[in-house]
Amino acid sequence: MRQETIEFTGHIIDSMILPKVFDTIMEDKGDFEVLEFKIGKKKTEPSYTKILVKGKDNEHLNTILQKLQKLGAIIAVPKDAETEIADMDGAAPENFCPTTNQKTYIRICREWKEVKNQKMDACVVIENEIPVCKIFRHIKKGDKVVVGLEGIKIEPIERSREPMGLFGFMRSDTSTEKPTITLIKEVANELKKIKKSGGKIGVVCGSAVIHTGASRALAEIINLGYVDAFFAGNAVAVRDMEYEIYGTSLGVNIETGKVEQYGYRKHTSTINSIIRLGSIKKAIDKGIIKHGMMYELITKNIPYILAGSIRDDGPLPEVITDIRESQDKMRELLRDLDLVLMMGSLLHSVAVGNLMKAETKVICVDIDPAIVIKLRDRGTSQAIGIVTDLGTFIPVLLEELKK
Amino acid sequence: MRQETIEFTGHIIDSMILPKVFDTIMEDKGDFEVLEFKIGKKKTEPSYTKILVKGKDNEHLNTILQKLQKLGAIIAVPKDAETEIADMDGAAPENFCPTTNQKTYIRICREWKEVKNQKMDACVVIENEIPVCKIFRHIKKGDKVVVGLEGIKIEPIERSREPMGLFGFMRSDTSTEKPTITLIKEVANELKKIKKSGGKIGVVCGSAVIHTGASRALAEIINLGYVDAFFAGNAVAVRDMEYEIYGTSLGVNIETGKVEQYGYRKHTSTINSIIRLGSIKKAIDKGIIKHGMMYELITKNIPYILAGSIRDDGPLPEVITDIRESQDKMRELLRDLDLVLMMGSLLHSVAVGNLMKAETKVICVDIDPAIVIKLRDRGTSQAIGIVTDLGTFIPVLLEELKK
Amino acid sequence: MRQETIEFTGHIIDSMILPKVFDTIMEDKGDFEVLEFKIGKKKTEPSYTKILVKGKDNEHLNTILQKLQKLGAIIAVPKDAETEIADMDGAAPENFCPTTNQKTYIRICREWKEVKNQKMDACVVIENEIPVCKIFRHIKKGDKVVVGLEGIKIEPIERSREPMGLFGFMRSDTSTEKPTITLIKEVANELKKIKKSGGKIGVVCGSAVIHTGASRALAEIINLGYVDAFFAGNAVAVRDMEYEIYGTSLGVNIETGKVEQYGYRKHTSTINSIIRLGSIKKAIDKGIIKHGMMYELITKNIPYILAGSIRDDGPLPEVITDIRESQDKMRELLRDLDLVLMMGSLLHSVAVGNLMKAETKVICVDIDPAIVIKLRDRGTSQAIGIVTDLGTFIPVLLEELKK
Amino acid sequence: MRQETIEFTGHIIDSMILPKVFDTIMEDKGDFEVLEFKIGKKKTEPSYTKILVKGKDNEHLNTILQKLQKLGAIIAVPKDAETEIADMDGAAPENFCPTTNQKTYIRICREWKEVKNQKMDACVVIENEIPVCKIFRHIKKGDKVVVGLEGIKIEPIERSREPMGLFGFMRSDTSTEKPTITLIKEVANELKKIKKSGGKIGVVCGSAVIHTGASRALAEIINLGYVDAFFAGNAVAVRDMEYEIYGTSLGVNIETGKVEQYGYRKHTSTINSIIRLGSIKKAIDKGIIKHGMMYELITKNIPYILAGSIRDDGPLPEVITDIRESQDKMRELLRDLDLVLMMGSLLHSVAVGNLMKAETKVICVDIDPAIVIKLRDRGTSQAIGIVTDLGTFIPVLLEELKK
Repeated sequence: MRQETIEFTGHIIDSMILPKVFDTIMEDKGDFEVLEFKIGKKKTEPSYTKILVKGKDNEHLNTILQKLQKLGAIIAVPKDAETEIADMDGAAPENFCPTTNQKTYIRICREWKEVKNQKMDACVVIENEIPVCKIFRHIKKGDKVVVGLEGIKIEPIERSREPMGLFGFMRSDTSTEKPTITLIKEVANELKKIKKSGGKIGVVCGSAVIHTGASRALAEIINLGYVDAFFAGNAVAVRDMEYEIYGTSLGVNIETGKVEQYGYRKHTSTINSIIRLGSIKKAIDKGIIKHGMMYELITKNIPYILAGSIRDDGPLPEVITDIRESQDKMRELLRDLDLVLMMGSLLHSVAVGNLMKAETKVICVDIDPAIVIKLRDRGTSQAIGIVTDLGTFIPVLLEELKK
Repeated sequence: MRQETIEFTGHIIDSMILPKVFDTIMEDKGDFEVLEFKIGKKKTEPSYTKILVKGKDNEHLNTILQKLQKLGAIIAVPKDAETEIADMDGAAPENFCPTTNQKTYIRICREWKEVKNQKMDACVVIENEIPVCKIFRHIKKGDKVVVGLEGIKIEPIERSREPMGLFGFMRSDTSTEKPTITLIKEVANELKKIKKSGGKIGVVCGSAVIHTGASRALAEIINLGYVDAFFAGNAVAVRDMEYEIYGTSLGVNIETGKVEQYGYRKHTSTINSIIRLGSIKKAIDKGIIKHGMMYELITKNIPYILAGSIRDDGPLPEVITDIRESQDKMRELLRDLDLVLMMGSLLHSVAVGNLMKAETKVICVDIDPAIVIKLRDRGTSQAIGIVTDLGTFIPVLLEELKK
Repeated sequence: MRQETIEFTGHIIDSMILPKVFDTIMEDKGDFEVLEFKIGKKKTEPSYTKILVKGKDNEHLNTILQKLQKLGAIIAVPKDAETEIADMDGAAPENFCPTTNQKTYIRICREWKEVKNQKMDACVVIENEIPVCKIFRHIKKGDKVVVGLEGIKIEPIERSREPMGLFGFMRSDTSTEKPTITLIKEVANELKKIKKSGGKIGVVCGSAVIHTGASRALAEIINLGYVDAFFAGNAVAVRDMEYEIYGTSLGVNIETGKVEQYGYRKHTSTINSIIRLGSIKKAIDKGIIKHGMMYELITKNIPYILAGSIRDDGPLPEVITDIRESQDKMRELLRDLDLVLMMGSLLHSVAVGNLMKAETKVICVDIDPAIVIKLRDRGTSQAIGIVTDLGTFIPVLLEELKK
Repeated sequence: MRQETIEFTGHIIDSMILPKVFDTIMEDKGDFEVLEFKIGKKKTEPSYTKILVKGKDNEHLNTILQKLQKLGAIIAVPKDAETEIADMDGAAPENFCPTTNQKTYIRICREWKEVKNQKMDACVVIENEIPVCKIFRHIKKGDKVVVGLEGIKIEPIERSREPMGLFGFMRSDTSTEKPTITLIKEVANELKKIKKSGGKIGVVCGSAVIHTGASRALAEIINLGYVDAFFAGNAVAVRDMEYEIYGTSLGVNIETGKVEQYGYRKHTSTINSIIRLGSIKKAIDKGIIKHGMMYELITKNIPYILAGSIRDDGPLPEVITDIRESQDKMRELLRDLDLVLMMGSLLHSVAVGNLMKAETKVICVDIDPAIVIKLRDRGTSQAIGIVTDLGTFIPVLLEELKK
């Protein structure tokens, strides 16, 4: 029988952390005793608890402690984090400590230091006394990789005790039965608030934005300055330009809704034409593309990433075809965003979610409720979901933003 | 080996009727020979074909002929329809001819006469030389019920050769990837066109209309005179009034979107209050209900049916609790409608679909694509489906109607 | 400023009750102070807390208290419940206390007494010192109806601290990504356990059971004695018999999967034939129906309810056409069930959920994840959902039950 | 006014081709006259028609003819195909003729020759008098690319007049209401038939196969020799091995169904371990992986492709990170498959669909009906869809294959 004393501080009751602590210990068939418990007596006071956790042997106890750590537990008498030297490029030592997307501190020389570039499913390397989050393939032989359990402190995002606005009233609920216009107003308020305070907004855009006829409205939102980073794939760029050149998307006429039965020619012709010109920018310079999302992004110098996938036709010259390069550039661009609005793409939304820290807010909008569930199941648990039709959501959002 | 000669006339190729004829014969392992075929050489000309159908015995041939009849086949040398006298109340003779929802003619005294009150899954009774569609429980002992195969002609709705507007470009496709705003404009045009020509519009309304915050917009559409008949259940009326009294629907605040966790009190209180007053009308007269869908319907004397279901709390005094009575009243109200707009209710949409003729146009709007599929699977094959969020669809439709 | 002291006892932390208490107070903009807090130091010990709740006036405080009551709060210095005499048949006095589906106690003559026939969205009447749950239309003028907040204690179902079996590992999660065969084994174990201990099982059956070809397997489960009550509608009985007579369901051949394009004749003929015979039982007696679910239910004298809906063709003689009568009989039959297995029907599942107490376990199986979400949204929060195909679920469950 | 005479031969009525021809002309506001029409008088006889098509000018006529060509039209007096010399690497001349996935013939020196490596959205290059399908990036400066409309003949897959088995009864319908066990038996028969005749079967596998607990059953199907090519991504391989090493998939215990709340460690550890070893094969050689899908594929030398995506953690050494390389290898592997069974992955299914010819049969199995719809919308119109739970589908299929 082995035991360890751990501590938690914060709004641990109404953040659902304490129930999860008890659940975790019991699910793993460990045991516990609550040694101390001070509840915040008023709304603004944090609570504190000291718990003795027991496992049947060292390994059992460590398994439990590792999970509690992700809930914010710190070992009551903290030591510095242990490290091990990477013995090869591109992989961590076997008992590396995998990261979450939550804010994390590493104790180095008796001082808690925040991990830089936080991201889930990676590891922490200490560089010049600074802890940095690194994915496997960026590890170099000789790196000091954090291992074990000591000296690691995770601060899960606290649900505020004074819920306000969209993130307040949405938090406990993923039901589809919500007053849509009200939700859109709240999204608009959130975007305006971020821009007013100098914050940055990213957009993940799937081709549903174009099929549902909303790309012109999104282009106008970009034009208004609401988008600081744009994440999409080959198809979005092709269809955006197909629409601007031919008025169709995959052969569907966006103005009339009419399906042109064999309209794929326009799709492949668009790709071929851009390849012939050499780049989207040249198509803009030559006056072939005069509107649309790509037009706004490029003429306004807004950073965008077109990440390749095996579904791509072409792809366009701007598309990054190596997924490692796409991920590295996406991670870079995501670093200083305050909110990401994900619309109509499961692949790109899950990918972006994997690459970002939990502090960045996420609003995921899709007509399929399964998308939000999958995004949260894959670890982007901060995401709030709005189940609606992008074809009306984006135009109505634009109207609200213009008010 | 038995055989029969049948004829088809009309746009039988581009209405997909001919392929279905061949399919039907082959699926049933019958045989056929095309005796004559005159194709319409220009767009406006109908085609004609005479086909010899073969079955292995009388029963086999009749099974095939019965199916072909539903596609519009008439037996080349027509006889008058056979009838049999009903031997009991509430049921037809065993070999009655079940109806479709398509326009049907019965040959009586060498004359083709159109069946009145057409509806699917019922039977035809001849009353004073007039064929009338009757459901089983309206059959009386002694009624002359049409049986067998002779003297019956069905005219399936023809797809026009000059497709226009919503019903034109939607017909071949149920994909969700459609430009939504364009679709809404087309729906608005369709509604305006019907009203301009003196036609009548019915609305089937589920509680999603209220949850998604769209009931005030629908109330305004009713106020503008676009709704001539309203089909809903207890829940819709309760929640509409809960919203007007308390600002909530099942405890969700429609203006702020906030969930009041134990807001069911307002739901049950609304029901209790109306029961205490005796009727919705009295609540309006007393000034308790001043807006909303029920308010508009009642103050404007627009016919509505609140059909009861086993899910109902209460129910309200206006709710019809016997399903047979509901069906009879619904069928009555449906008879002279030109278009039914179905929104947010599978139960009521399928029920209304069962009770109406195929000539009445149907637009079914729901965020769940399965709803439209089920509606069509259940026989309302004329329905076109729009997969979108009612919370934005109805407000945007209102704006279009006001233009 | 008004205040009241309340108490909670039990596993209030890991049952998520305490966080909900704080949420509720804050969402309603009330204030609170934690006066006492004793946490269960070991797994098996309950916790206790005493909280001072503050509202800005009497009404505000009462609104909050009412919600806290549903979480299990009792007012620290309890008084007997207040009652008011019903002034009319069929409705409660305006400030009646609406019920939840949770176990509830009423304080009568200083004694806490459990409410009989508990059900959500109804009211409590005291009859001979015994509190009984009554729906509005069963209230008679002169009944003593419980009103106000005093003397009411609700005991929400506690999540056990030692999670086991299906209800253990499913509780926190509605994700569709679960090992299906494992889940089916757990359902089988649960059903066997209930039967072994003399418990009773109900089944809600929608027509998907028949379309997906699983009705013969469900009939065999009935035959094995696993079903004590059966809830369905007209369509299920018709299609079950259509399958037994013709081998089809709505014209789809269940053995070959082939769609008989105009197979509706068999559906309407089945209805007509049963009406002609007078009852399903007579069809069994005459040897027309020799297998299937209805056959097993009737020959084994298992109670079943076919509740009518406005979608019904016919309906069959056994169908209850008045929804009030259906509800009363369903409530009666539900009273002593230990578990209800809901399969393939949203309408009947929500209806059954509305009529039952929260102690009865609910397993809801459907291929559409939205069904479970809607069931829980409508208040049947004890339901656990399994997202799978009934066409394989039921046959595999049968195999497990036979083991 | 310009006109051209075209011809069609085959089962053009029951293959729905003729109605589409008329639709296409009318949608494009062209005109037509039927010059000749010979209908196949018996089941086995093909039909023939000669149609005069009219457009308002040359461009209008050509647009229509191009679409008719995809339906199988050939210009009545055929000429050889025109070609143009590619003026740059990686792109086609502007008026190249984009391909479909249907069997296509090019007229070269008065002889119709079948295009090799057929695939949609590419172009045709003539190499040594042989027409070959090439994607843009494989075009080299100087290639002879087919342009214009002359000398091109497309043979759309004909629906057989004698429908049998799975592909027979499924063809006209995508409804979810199908007898599942019957469908699974038909799939098993289809797979057995292909293997018996020496054909080849491919499998597209998404991670739902593992989450739903079906990976061991699929591994056994591979072991039985039913899989000749395997298409998946990084996640499938990682989770397959995580299951074999730890018994979990993304931290869900597959045997007990229990969610290990912070089980992601096992996912990342699996990746890191394989990277450290250098390859999956080495993990097998060292006895770390002893069962599972990857084990069967590698020990049996069955070709597999793990195509990278931006969602990937790691990725594993075997994963192809450049999407162009993935596509090239996938196309190679797809070339001689007779049937592809797609299970649980939208991304990989659409990608595979894009890369293959229409003659290869496709069965797509998913619990989400939207997947099949999207697959068909993207051009893989030969796909038939089965909406069921992979967690039961695969084990039941295995049982059927073993019979």
